[in-house]
Amino acid sequence: MPKKIDHHKRKIQIAEATWKVIVDEGIEQATVRKIAKSAGMSVGAMRHYFTSQAELLRFSMELVSDRVIQRLKGRKYSGNPLEFVTEGIYEVLPVDEERRIEVEVWLAFSAKVLVDTTLRELSNKVYNDMHQGLENVVYALQLLKLAKDELDLDMEVNRLHALVDGMAMHHLLNPEQFTQEKMTQTLQYHLQSLCK
Amino acid sequence: MPKKIDHHKRKIQIAEATWKVIVDEGIEQATVRKIAKSAGMSVGAMRHYFTSQAELLRFSMELVSDRVIQRLKGRKYSGNPLEFVTEGIYEVLPVDEERRIEVEVWLAFSAKVLVDTTLRELSNKVYNDMHQGLENVVYALQLLKLAKDELDLDMEVNRLHALVDGMAMHHLLNPEQFTQEKMTQTLQYHLQSLCK
Repeated sequence: MPKKIDHHKRKIQIAEATWKVIVDEGIEQATVRKIAKSAGMSVGAMRHYFTSQAELLRFSMELVSDRVIQRLKGRKYSGNPLEFVTEGIYEVLPVDEERRIEVEVWLAFSAKVLVDTTLRELSNKVYNDMHQGLENVVYALQLLKLAKDELDLDMEVNRLHALVDGMAMHHLLNPEQFTQEKMTQTLQYHLQSLCK
Repeated sequence: MPKKIDHHKRKIQIAEATWKVIVDEGIEQATVRKIAKSAGMSVGAMRHYFTSQAELLRFSMELVSDRVIQRLKGRKYSGNPLEFVTEGIYEVLPVDEERRIEVEVWLAFSAKVLVDTTLRELSNKVYNDMHQGLENVVYALQLLKLAKDELDLDMEVNRLHALVDGMAMHHLLNPEQFTQEKMTQTLQYHLQSLCK
């Protein structure tokens, strides 16, 4: 078994090297050659883990949503209920370096989807994963008896998903106008508006 | 004077040709050569209107926010007040082909800003223009005596701006999951939640 675990670990290292190239130079520059260099291995050795650039890109993108979902699932409820929900949403916002990298990779990927229709299916999967994660957060509002009775929960998931992605993008692109403080305040304002 | 008007008209035609290349092939492919071809003119003739690719890109991006602002300013108040506000926001959502192209160009440009810091200033200008446009829409809610008393209008502008850009992106990238109908319903749901 250790060999299999190492294989998966190595794939994750390569995906993280892919993220680094995307963040530093843009997704157009994320060639197999550059990624191999960033991962500190030969192009030939990398073929052992990914047989095509498309497969590598797919794995790297899925790793973004996998990480988010993992973090959301790993949370244990404790403390103040509204804080619990708020912190769940911080998992998909660029509030620290780790999450900032994930959001940058996702935004670069999103722009590429517009002109590369072969990526549509993967884009749909990432969208659905995130939507599901946020759905759990919105439903937690109700389970914790915080939500106003008149909320339409499906609409709230659509609204929160769009709000979160829009805020993440605004903070990444215009950090001086839409500061991290404004981003977290806007989120808190939004969540409070949903609560009794 | 006619000469000057023609000059400006020609610049706009070139900017629209730039949009077309960006939408069809991606912003990385928006070279002077390709844009000239799409505009039906020689590279040499294009230099008469734009001396650098950077200047051409700047003009093309500014044209997106100029168009939106022009449409928002050109609106005359009539009819149902909530409809008036809702239709104002449709000006920045991909509800038809014209607006869809604008949003695609803006999204492609946004991804490029992440890796090209020379575009930051222009990105900030576009952000501010859009923010101002949406601020006018939110303040109209209050002027028309629709807004709930407890709203924090600055927060509402941040929230609406992020919501609108997030929805526009979701609809462009995942039109089957987040359909145009869902997009307009989510907007209406949001606006209703702000009203008495």
